[in-house]
Amino acid sequence: AKIMSVSAGRVLIWGFLWVVVWTMEMLSQDNTDLRIKEILWEALSDRTAYENLRVLCLTTAGRVTGSGKAEEALELTFRMMEALGFDTVYRQPVEVPHWVRGEKEKAWLKSKRSGKIPLSVAALGMSAGTGSGGIKGQVVEVKGLEELPALGKERLKGKIVFFNRPMDVTLVNTFSAYGGVADQRTLGASAAAEYGASGVIVRSLTTALDDFPHTGVLRYKEGVPEIPAVAISTLDAEVLSRTLKDDPETELFFKTNCETLPEVLSANVIGEIRGSLYPEQIITVGGHLDAWDPGEGAHDDGAGCIQAMEVLRIMKELAIHPKQTIRAVMFMDEEIAQRGGAAYARQAEERGEKHWFALESDRGGLTPLGIGISASPERFKKMQELEKYFTPWGNFRISERGGGVDIGPLRKLGTPLSTLIPDPQRYFDYHHSANDTFEQINIRELQLGSAAITSLVWLVDLFDL
Amino acid sequence: AKIMSVSAGRVLIWGFLWVVVWTMEMLSQDNTDLRIKEILWEALSDRTAYENLRVLCLTTAGRVTGSGKAEEALELTFRMMEALGFDTVYRQPVEVPHWVRGEKEKAWLKSKRSGKIPLSVAALGMSAGTGSGGIKGQVVEVKGLEELPALGKERLKGKIVFFNRPMDVTLVNTFSAYGGVADQRTLGASAAAEYGASGVIVRSLTTALDDFPHTGVLRYKEGVPEIPAVAISTLDAEVLSRTLKDDPETELFFKTNCETLPEVLSANVIGEIRGSLYPEQIITVGGHLDAWDPGEGAHDDGAGCIQAMEVLRIMKELAIHPKQTIRAVMFMDEEIAQRGGAAYARQAEERGEKHWFALESDRGGLTPLGIGISASPERFKKMQELEKYFTPWGNFRISERGGGVDIGPLRKLGTPLSTLIPDPQRYFDYHHSANDTFEQINIRELQLGSAAITSLVWLVDLFDL
Repeated sequence: AKIMSVSAGRVLIWGFLWVVVWTMEMLSQDNTDLRIKEILWEALSDRTAYENLRVLCLTTAGRVTGSGKAEEALELTFRMMEALGFDTVYRQPVEVPHWVRGEKEKAWLKSKRSGKIPLSVAALGMSAGTGSGGIKGQVVEVKGLEELPALGKERLKGKIVFFNRPMDVTLVNTFSAYGGVADQRTLGASAAAEYGASGVIVRSLTTALDDFPHTGVLRYKEGVPEIPAVAISTLDAEVLSRTLKDDPETELFFKTNCETLPEVLSANVIGEIRGSLYPEQIITVGGHLDAWDPGEGAHDDGAGCIQAMEVLRIMKELAIHPKQTIRAVMFMDEEIAQRGGAAYARQAEERGEKHWFALESDRGGLTPLGIGISASPERFKKMQELEKYFTPWGNFRISERGGGVDIGPLRKLGTPLSTLIPDPQRYFDYHHSANDTFEQINIRELQLGSAAITSLVWLVDLFDL
Repeated sequence: AKIMSVSAGRVLIWGFLWVVVWTMEMLSQDNTDLRIKEILWEALSDRTAYENLRVLCLTTAGRVTGSGKAEEALELTFRMMEALGFDTVYRQPVEVPHWVRGEKEKAWLKSKRSGKIPLSVAALGMSAGTGSGGIKGQVVEVKGLEELPALGKERLKGKIVFFNRPMDVTLVNTFSAYGGVADQRTLGASAAAEYGASGVIVRSLTTALDDFPHTGVLRYKEGVPEIPAVAISTLDAEVLSRTLKDDPETELFFKTNCETLPEVLSANVIGEIRGSLYPEQIITVGGHLDAWDPGEGAHDDGAGCIQAMEVLRIMKELAIHPKQTIRAVMFMDEEIAQRGGAAYARQAEERGEKHWFALESDRGGLTPLGIGISASPERFKKMQELEKYFTPWGNFRISERGGGVDIGPLRKLGTPLSTLIPDPQRYFDYHHSANDTFEQINIRELQLGSAAITSLVWLVDLFDL
């Protein structure tokens, strides 16, 4: 009984203090502006996040869902959050796919004029392997799935289909350009297999002209043969395309050594600061921990994970006591089957958790230009008014439409979903390739993103938006 | 007489056509929006500018004002503009300083605990050399010029003054942070010499913690001994500072081999598209061709030069016939004595040229966030209304205050001055150091900047703003 009254007393005192603080805050925008500046200063002058990202990249490169490196990344980020002194750090178990690349891929083309030329390729995630002999055949180049029906079985049977529609570089928003070509990678293999193709080779989804194959997941259609699929670098896609124009009989060979093993038990890692007033109400900030193996997963999405931790670290450092519980979630398996996000929302539903707000950072650790939010019109309107607090960032916009693969399943709980929107120009230079390394992170760009999401989370909590 | 009437007829026809076109344009914003999109598409899908910048960086690195490499850069950009088919390409002679770095600098510190440690330094531009023996002495660390009077001659005579005030990383605008420390580099040597110091070593003006010395010009005060001055990398500035805390007797040595030679004749290079209606009225778009020698001058300011050319190339490519003459100017000697800009304005004044508008790009080839304009309140207001045409860029703002070192002298002609404002986060990672190389240019960031300035110039010309 005594314990209960102490605890009730604490709630009363905290509640009273909060009313006082809140009233003071509301009396002037100046205090809020000052607090935002303090968040910005803390983010820009502290190197913890940058150093933690360096260690994550350096020691857990290749942390594909289900891999040993993914397990190491779970342990590492668990320890990082413990070291940062969060109130609680725990694992949330998740069953995940386990696909392994195996030995490095080989590929070449052979034409009359140029002879044999090696090509830069990488198996697509979840692709079947070619077997030890590889596959070899003539190539049919197409610019998209819609060309396949006209070609039909006569032209495609036994052939390797080369999907070569480039990203539209004239679109300022590179994510729109990505959306315009991604079906080649995700659906191309099964679409070609329906016409009897023996394999597919897909132009890398990048705006850059580079020699990195940019991998990513594919999805096989049930009941259709699972044919091997690789990404080819954009430079080599140009080489292959020109060679084919010269010599349509050009022969292509590739060998991949990937396979899909039984599913394994993995986890999301969650760190929390307990809410001072409504501990049962949760604000989620997340990134995903798994990353494609050719690179170090620096921008995709080590940066988002580290920024999520940074929200909590900055609050602690500035002695901000959020009313609600703030959770940094390192989601597992964004890249393959999105099991981490699904498990997180499922558990939230089963336990009847109240999810007030969620934010995802999964577009790279680049200069933040705004935050997109999906919420009811009334809540969105209130949140958009927060834009005025972001003047220190320069051109910063709060726009409609937010969310992300990992927090997406929270939508069914009615949670407003938001996403950090960084400058998209360089993102696909790195995405899913060996070029996604820590060297490509600029500390200030990373920090400005952390400051932006910390500020939004703090404002949403402060004003009960 | 016949020739004159043909020419008069042409003016009439062009004038009539222009009235027709202009009326059509004004009838709907859609046409203007479409034209802006065409400019953007052209900029984003063409690699000429990127390739030209590559060649400029690759072949004319070290193009310090007055050097042989600067002369090569003049010849190269002249030929580039000829190849692009501009109406006129010519040189405008400019007398410039000629300072040479000589052999690479050497420096070390020697303390009781750590012994001898080599340091990364580079002579500041226009600094006197140390002579073959170098200079050696004890070090007095200060955080700014304002500390010198209190230290006085007793503490500074014969010493090496170490200016170690870092850039304020908590400022989002890195140019403001630069402004807060630059006096150490520009005025530090003479300020220290007034108290009898034998040399100065200045913390590099960068937000990065790196091992590149970032150089830049100094200005000696008349009547004060011209003592040698070097920039030290921020990493080594930290090393030196900690060593001094440990052992105030730490000895510092540096040797520089630079000297100032007699002035030489150099030039600005100018390319023009002749105005279809008001050929005598000029819009200037410029960058500067000279660059500090440790790097390739990719961001500072090869990018600006190439973007200026791109304005004319895009107009030609899209068959835009501006009413006024558009000039791309590669200014010489921005970094040392700003003679190129001075000569350009002086000649404009002497010849009674009408300079309608001027824009400078000298903040790096990075994602454009806006354009700043200095103009009369009425003209600025009209120009700011152009912001609506920049929605394809995302967050793009037309803000007050523009200009630049090179176009600055045109102010006395009443010309509105403007500046491209790119994302400033990474700029000082490159600025004046061996890190300012072509690899640091992202093609899309460069292209978006070109598209922005081309659009503004076109709109200003189209609407007579």
